[in-house]
Amino acid sequence: MGRFFFHPDPQPGKVILLPPEEAHHLEVQRIAPQKDILVGDGKGKLYRGILQGREREGAFVLVVEKVREEDPPYPLFIWQSFLKSPTRMDWLVEKLAEIGVTKIGLFPAERSVRERISEEKMQRLQRIVINACKQSGRVWFPVVQVFTSWEEFLSTLSAAKGGTLFLADPSGEENLLRTLKKGDIRCLLGLIIGPEGDLTEKEKGDLSALGARPVSLGRKILRSETAALVGAALLSSFLEEKLCG
Amino acid sequence: MGRFFFHPDPQPGKVILLPPEEAHHLEVQRIAPQKDILVGDGKGKLYRGILQGREREGAFVLVVEKVREEDPPYPLFIWQSFLKSPTRMDWLVEKLAEIGVTKIGLFPAERSVRERISEEKMQRLQRIVINACKQSGRVWFPVVQVFTSWEEFLSTLSAAKGGTLFLADPSGEENLLRTLKKGDIRCLLGLIIGPEGDLTEKEKGDLSALGARPVSLGRKILRSETAALVGAALLSSFLEEKLCG
Repeated sequence: MGRFFFHPDPQPGKVILLPPEEAHHLEVQRIAPQKDILVGDGKGKLYRGILQGREREGAFVLVVEKVREEDPPYPLFIWQSFLKSPTRMDWLVEKLAEIGVTKIGLFPAERSVRERISEEKMQRLQRIVINACKQSGRVWFPVVQVFTSWEEFLSTLSAAKGGTLFLADPSGEENLLRTLKKGDIRCLLGLIIGPEGDLTEKEKGDLSALGARPVSLGRKILRSETAALVGAALLSSFLEEKLCG
Repeated sequence: MGRFFFHPDPQPGKVILLPPEEAHHLEVQRIAPQKDILVGDGKGKLYRGILQGREREGAFVLVVEKVREEDPPYPLFIWQSFLKSPTRMDWLVEKLAEIGVTKIGLFPAERSVRERISEEKMQRLQRIVINACKQSGRVWFPVVQVFTSWEEFLSTLSAAKGGTLFLADPSGEENLLRTLKKGDIRCLLGLIIGPEGDLTEKEKGDLSALGARPVSLGRKILRSETAALVGAALLSSFLEEKLCG
């Protein structure tokens, strides 16, 4: 499946307004009024719509019918501590969305260089996610969640119990791949990645108390965002092949 | 292991000249003359050296002794067809170097949007590789090879026989992870990734004649460079854990 257009709530029989950014993509693809297009809601559903016309405020589309509905993918959460570089943060989010992570959490750690993510940046990351999903034909969009404090992050983690939770830790005795191969995992996976300067002992203790298992991703030293990527690639491959119990 | 400085041929007892770019890193790290530094040759050896001084042409270092030597990693080749976007090419090469790919080949395919890679770009990619390896403490640097034609690429592939050669193919019946899990691989792995518009049937035939096995990387549609990354993450994890026979 190729590109589709995003609208949070397309309802058959109604005319929706695609925002200017989406409308711009229609223009790039030279889609004329009265032509059929696909509209996805980011929550598994795809609709057929008919382009009515473009105005300054966006493009009007008559939603005709639901043409497809997909089951949600296995839950795969990646929690990455804030990265210093905005560009690295952008492409990490893009890649995680493409790979099929269902929730991308960004949190501040004691040794994070960056202390917060602005509202503007958050919106930019949302747009990146939407574009990556449209491009790769993912009809379920990952949720991007930005935490403002370590405590807020921890309370979300407690709520996500019931799955298998890993902490990327170069000094971890367990190896992620070996653990996955043993099949010793549930079909809800989470991976936490600390900042470049690593998590503090206290932070590691907090995570351990919540059941996070420290795993190494190999004998290599990886940049924080590369660790997230390598981890996501392994976890999503195992989940997709239903190699979890 | 942290950062070291690169010189292609450090010999104990000799004074070497680190080029201006490397000398700049010395300056950033505020390393003063008469201080010890590590110098790596990119081929597994690390030397202790003493900084003599900085001049306009670079930094002079007296090489004292070899302090470490590492066996070469398992061969892992990633052959990626030219990407349209120069930035995506940059970061792909950086990530592949970090992950531990030993050879990065870039080749033109019939449907590649880009037809060639300039000498300047090639040098830029080499610098990216050196920096990624220094950062992640890899003492073996991957070789970056740019092919000017499909035929040249094919002849290199023929020479690399003896390993297990995969072709990333969304329509492939085999799944890469399942194949790796079966252990049906040798400790020399190669993965070929076609351009966004896919390889032509003729090109696929050429690769198949050389024994390349089409494998899917999952049910997702990945951008060309994301496929390279996911594949490299899987292959390197299996190689590092010696899960090859």
